[in-house]
Amino acid sequence: MKQYEQKMEAYLTLINRALSEALPLADASYDSVIEAMRYSVMNAGKRIRPVLTLEFCRVLGGEVALALPFACGVEMIHCYSLIHDDLPCMDDDDLRRGKPSCHKQFGEATALLAGDALLTKAFEVMSHSELGKKDPAAALQAIRQMAYFAGDAGMVGGQVIDLAIEGKKVSPQLLQQMHRMKTSAIIKAACKMGVICAGGTEEDLLKAEQYGDNLGLAFQIVDDILDLTADESELGKPVNSDLENEKVTFITLFGMEQAEQMAQEYTNNALEVAKSLPDGGFLEELIQVLLVRRK
Amino acid sequence: MKQYEQKMEAYLTLINRALSEALPLADASYDSVIEAMRYSVMNAGKRIRPVLTLEFCRVLGGEVALALPFACGVEMIHCYSLIHDDLPCMDDDDLRRGKPSCHKQFGEATALLAGDALLTKAFEVMSHSELGKKDPAAALQAIRQMAYFAGDAGMVGGQVIDLAIEGKKVSPQLLQQMHRMKTSAIIKAACKMGVICAGGTEEDLLKAEQYGDNLGLAFQIVDDILDLTADESELGKPVNSDLENEKVTFITLFGMEQAEQMAQEYTNNALEVAKSLPDGGFLEELIQVLLVRRK
Repeated sequence: MKQYEQKMEAYLTLINRALSEALPLADASYDSVIEAMRYSVMNAGKRIRPVLTLEFCRVLGGEVALALPFACGVEMIHCYSLIHDDLPCMDDDDLRRGKPSCHKQFGEATALLAGDALLTKAFEVMSHSELGKKDPAAALQAIRQMAYFAGDAGMVGGQVIDLAIEGKKVSPQLLQQMHRMKTSAIIKAACKMGVICAGGTEEDLLKAEQYGDNLGLAFQIVDDILDLTADESELGKPVNSDLENEKVTFITLFGMEQAEQMAQEYTNNALEVAKSLPDGGFLEELIQVLLVRRK
Repeated sequence: MKQYEQKMEAYLTLINRALSEALPLADASYDSVIEAMRYSVMNAGKRIRPVLTLEFCRVLGGEVALALPFACGVEMIHCYSLIHDDLPCMDDDDLRRGKPSCHKQFGEATALLAGDALLTKAFEVMSHSELGKKDPAAALQAIRQMAYFAGDAGMVGGQVIDLAIEGKKVSPQLLQQMHRMKTSAIIKAACKMGVICAGGTEEDLLKAEQYGDNLGLAFQIVDDILDLTADESELGKPVNSDLENEKVTFITLFGMEQAEQMAQEYTNNALEVAKSLPDGGFLEELIQVLLVRRK
């Protein structure tokens, strides 16, 4: 565990420095959007997605530094999605990670544009990488994966389902499809980009996809559980928001006990994949830590 | 002129078919955003940006078909920017090209997500191209240009300046910088991507940038003029909106006569670049047509 924490710490340092360097510096004429971008990225985020990109690259024998721009890319895309998701026309959330959400701090227009700029910057960073010089075909493949899983067939499509089912009766299948698209999709992209940066095989890509898929679903169930059981100050956002918004969750559909069992099952599936990888210990610990997290 | 129109027609057919094929088809679970994407892209748009990508590729001896995914990419990015620009927290426009704007038709949340999905889809389409197989380094370079000019240092940055100067006194320099970023930037990207698809030289890239920069500024001045002089039904959006929103325009800063002269000057600059290109006749006619357009 100590080793896990040290390694996570080292990854976070690497990722946070790279993110800060990749983001623009404030400039007199359009300060606000850059401030808003930095505000929403340079925070105490868990950085799960970029860590996965780096670690999948490492376990498959790749150079971690080559994966760093793609790690930054997936984190920027994650952050843009949170900004847009918090907007009044979406979930209308005032708090994010214990601070005012982006539009509360900077206004709606600036938040909208900061999200747009982060999504765009992600592709700029990923298309401007060392990997692109060494193996441009691999860099292109990574970008394609990222775009696919972030778009209408992935994360954005998941958001749309989320809106569409509001207040409606939902089948377990549709709830799962929604979370597969909304949450698992870009986690899968994060894992697969790591594999691509390491020059992994088709079989490795499949494992990355399975690990990401299961981790994403386990993560979402734990999120639903925390929304009901966590302490607001610890969680950094309002609890019981799902109940108040009458959201269908794994808990409302399956009950607490079965939901916890499902989270354990998805975790076990991901653990199995991690065990089949060379030196997959960190990936094993990571998902176990996520299962028992308190925020 | 007849030849120009025939060629434009052929380009539009090519572009509209490619866009329609690149966009997803409606699917039971997340119909609305796909409908909104198609609604906002598959319309009577002038397609200036994608035409420029194809034509710059052609005049430099490239295969037009290779440039098509990049032409689609830049048009999708243009369309996403219009959707987000029309949102209530931005310009709050109800009409676009004579039809209800995206959020008026589909609601704010769906419009926001349709814009996000189009921006993402643009990068998916560009990273999944024939050029990427033949010359992945060139495809990466094109994507990088597109991302750079669409992001905080380009189009989005221009939007931010536009918001920041609302109701304020503005210098001619800042107005010009704003339009260079907001309008010229992605036109430059369109031209440069065409050059890259054709394997053009650094000198060709510079010419593409100059042509795009001047065309963008001329285009914007004509836009400002049309907002004051055009017929609403012909323009397809409300006229006098700049006046009502107290926007600083080339007309409010320089007066109508000088603004017209400036549009002519920028047009002349672009014409000069076009003349220096092999077989640049179409590019000459294109900017002349834009200068005298009525909508």
